[in-house]
Amino acid sequence: MNRRMFNVNLLSALALTALPGAQSSAALRVNGLRLNTHLQELSAFGSNPQGGVSRLAFSAADLQGRQYAMKLMREAQLEVSIDRAGNLIGRRAGGDTRLPPLALGSHIDSVPEGGNYDGDVGALGAIEVAQTLAETHTTLRHALEVIIFQDEEGGTSGSHALVAGLTDAQLKLTTNSGKTVRDGIKFIGGDPDKLSQALRQRGDLAAYMELHIEQGGILYGEKIDIGVVEGIVGIHQWEVTITGFANHAGTTPMNQRRDAMLAAAKFIVAVNRIVTSTAGRQVGTVGKLQAQPGAYNVIPGKVVLGLELRDLATAKIQSLFQTIQAEAEQIAKESGTTFSFQQTFTNLPAPTDLRLRKVIDATAQQLGFTTKTLPSGAGHDAQEIAAIAPVGMIFIPSVDGISHSPREFSRPEDITNGANVLLHALMKLDGMDLR
Amino acid sequence: MNRRMFNVNLLSALALTALPGAQSSAALRVNGLRLNTHLQELSAFGSNPQGGVSRLAFSAADLQGRQYAMKLMREAQLEVSIDRAGNLIGRRAGGDTRLPPLALGSHIDSVPEGGNYDGDVGALGAIEVAQTLAETHTTLRHALEVIIFQDEEGGTSGSHALVAGLTDAQLKLTTNSGKTVRDGIKFIGGDPDKLSQALRQRGDLAAYMELHIEQGGILYGEKIDIGVVEGIVGIHQWEVTITGFANHAGTTPMNQRRDAMLAAAKFIVAVNRIVTSTAGRQVGTVGKLQAQPGAYNVIPGKVVLGLELRDLATAKIQSLFQTIQAEAEQIAKESGTTFSFQQTFTNLPAPTDLRLRKVIDATAQQLGFTTKTLPSGAGHDAQEIAAIAPVGMIFIPSVDGISHSPREFSRPEDITNGANVLLHALMKLDGMDLR
Repeated sequence: MNRRMFNVNLLSALALTALPGAQSSAALRVNGLRLNTHLQELSAFGSNPQGGVSRLAFSAADLQGRQYAMKLMREAQLEVSIDRAGNLIGRRAGGDTRLPPLALGSHIDSVPEGGNYDGDVGALGAIEVAQTLAETHTTLRHALEVIIFQDEEGGTSGSHALVAGLTDAQLKLTTNSGKTVRDGIKFIGGDPDKLSQALRQRGDLAAYMELHIEQGGILYGEKIDIGVVEGIVGIHQWEVTITGFANHAGTTPMNQRRDAMLAAAKFIVAVNRIVTSTAGRQVGTVGKLQAQPGAYNVIPGKVVLGLELRDLATAKIQSLFQTIQAEAEQIAKESGTTFSFQQTFTNLPAPTDLRLRKVIDATAQQLGFTTKTLPSGAGHDAQEIAAIAPVGMIFIPSVDGISHSPREFSRPEDITNGANVLLHALMKLDGMDLR
Repeated sequence: MNRRMFNVNLLSALALTALPGAQSSAALRVNGLRLNTHLQELSAFGSNPQGGVSRLAFSAADLQGRQYAMKLMREAQLEVSIDRAGNLIGRRAGGDTRLPPLALGSHIDSVPEGGNYDGDVGALGAIEVAQTLAETHTTLRHALEVIIFQDEEGGTSGSHALVAGLTDAQLKLTTNSGKTVRDGIKFIGGDPDKLSQALRQRGDLAAYMELHIEQGGILYGEKIDIGVVEGIVGIHQWEVTITGFANHAGTTPMNQRRDAMLAAAKFIVAVNRIVTSTAGRQVGTVGKLQAQPGAYNVIPGKVVLGLELRDLATAKIQSLFQTIQAEAEQIAKESGTTFSFQQTFTNLPAPTDLRLRKVIDATAQQLGFTTKTLPSGAGHDAQEIAAIAPVGMIFIPSVDGISHSPREFSRPEDITNGANVLLHALMKLDGMDLR
């Protein structure tokens, strides 16, 4: 998207913008124009000539973006600090100091050649909620923390550090910026040697809510305003090695081949069939494949491919995998090949809190929005925070379901809608006993 | 195969070895033990520690192998020369100087990590035929040329130079040895600036015969002694680009994907089905594939793969390709992808001469061998020579159909049998008017 298009779209965001002087709690609205303007301003840091942004965690662009976010936090009258893990924290005092704070947040780092909405919408949306509270002198019972987590895209380092700390191995990992996580944390103002001071325990946060773009095409395709996230899916990945026998593609008759590529192709088709032939929102992907030796005129003797399954239920993933393995055995038998599976990554599903789900859904409907309950197929900081606090997630539509791409786009009015749901859900949670 | 195994196998070759003193033309036999010993000696040049040989054209090992072959030629009383293209030529005079020579030959260069039979059997088999003629004082009407062509594995450079010359572009190609074809030809004693002096015209050779291992598993599987090659298949290769849309593997529902990998898998399965569902010996292979971006968690937006079809009839290849294209269109429509095909290589089929085929078949049967007529799925120097002379090819079994591998193996008795067919077919051709 070019800058001109961005400006034109901003105008349509005015519809749901705060009415000056409207002070009653139910009539409270965020300033959608301001929020979308802030998103536009943030997009300058790490912007790519071809569109989109490369604001890699721990890069110079990331540092600039964080300075800009801190400026916005201060304008929203938040008390700004950087925790030892490098997470940005903006705090607004609450009326009842005995209560733990309610937290809102997301991230502003991006993937290489990413877009301007993934993370940014939730991070600046949370600041906009704080500013709306400040401008309208609305005091909540709970304190409010706006948290901008560091390095979400590199593996939710910031939120993981907050709930579990980081191991030495995790600190040594080299990120896309070129820096290790350890050096990156130093670079953005944290202290990797004092990470334990950043740790939060169960009970330290009353609840955590995150506004985010869907990154998929369900809401956009079904013209739904607000997604109520029922949980963040678990991810299982396997490296699958298919061994046949490499031979001359000219002299080996079709019925004498042990073609690892043909077996791999049948496997990929089978994975798709198995994943799509049971009800549910599970997804299965073969995203990478290497064939050896890899020449026009040699029947491949070996194929290594990557299989990924995601679902809200680990049992569902396991059941799908068993069916896939059985089918692979059948393909192996028919093709004179062998299959071996090595699990390379596992991530447990993180269900959102049922009370927060209900609050978000009711709030969105009261504001006049259509809603749909759906899983998050992508990982989020909320997944980490679920280990210590009730979490909820609000999704807004992604145009054409595109994400992690310069073509990633969410309409300004949808962003404004999402921030208003965040604001009013926060106020509802503030009145609840979440212990 | 290790050296010890080679020696043990040699003993079994004795069965069909020349009987000393057997002078009648019909009773003439090559010396199978000598031929197999020569093959073993040749295997030293470029031998790999793990077995097999890397005697790349224009390498030092190639040069050593050629010097060894020239020594054998001289022992066989052949007059040795190197033509301007670098081909080794051993000549034995004929009784009727008005007749053009009959030629036998093959090559002794290998693929990287190749075996000790592909090319070597035909090259040293032809020398053994010449030595048998010399020892028995058998004079043919036609002169005999034993030709060991240079750089067969790199693209039949030597035989192509003989019938058509080499273009500047062909001379500039870098071969597996690291040298260009031009520098390689100089290295082995040719003169790339005087290639036209190596050219042969139609009529310059009465006929050309090549003994070769099958490189496939048909003869071995069916326990047949001798293959009569009906022709060398044509080869068509295409680079196939499948374009979908790269997207998040977690957030993109199965029914909203434009998965280039899934489309590629369906295509590979379809190619196999189409090629195997019509009668005939055609083969179709997808030997290489690249998926982009190539990560567990990204649905591939682009796949580039290599498609190869081979058959004795160009029309058959074209018909198969049309069916494949139609099927690709259907897959594209169903998967939201596009397919594009770019032809990267075409090689016309080269039928062998019907008269030579009949002579080879009759000779083999008279010697008590079972025969089968079959195509050559691999390219050979005979394919080039077919442009200027009647050609014939004799195949012997490859154990398990393995070729271009250290595991390539032909039994010593099969090698001896092939050389005896070559000898007697040559003598039959000598009595014929092949013009």
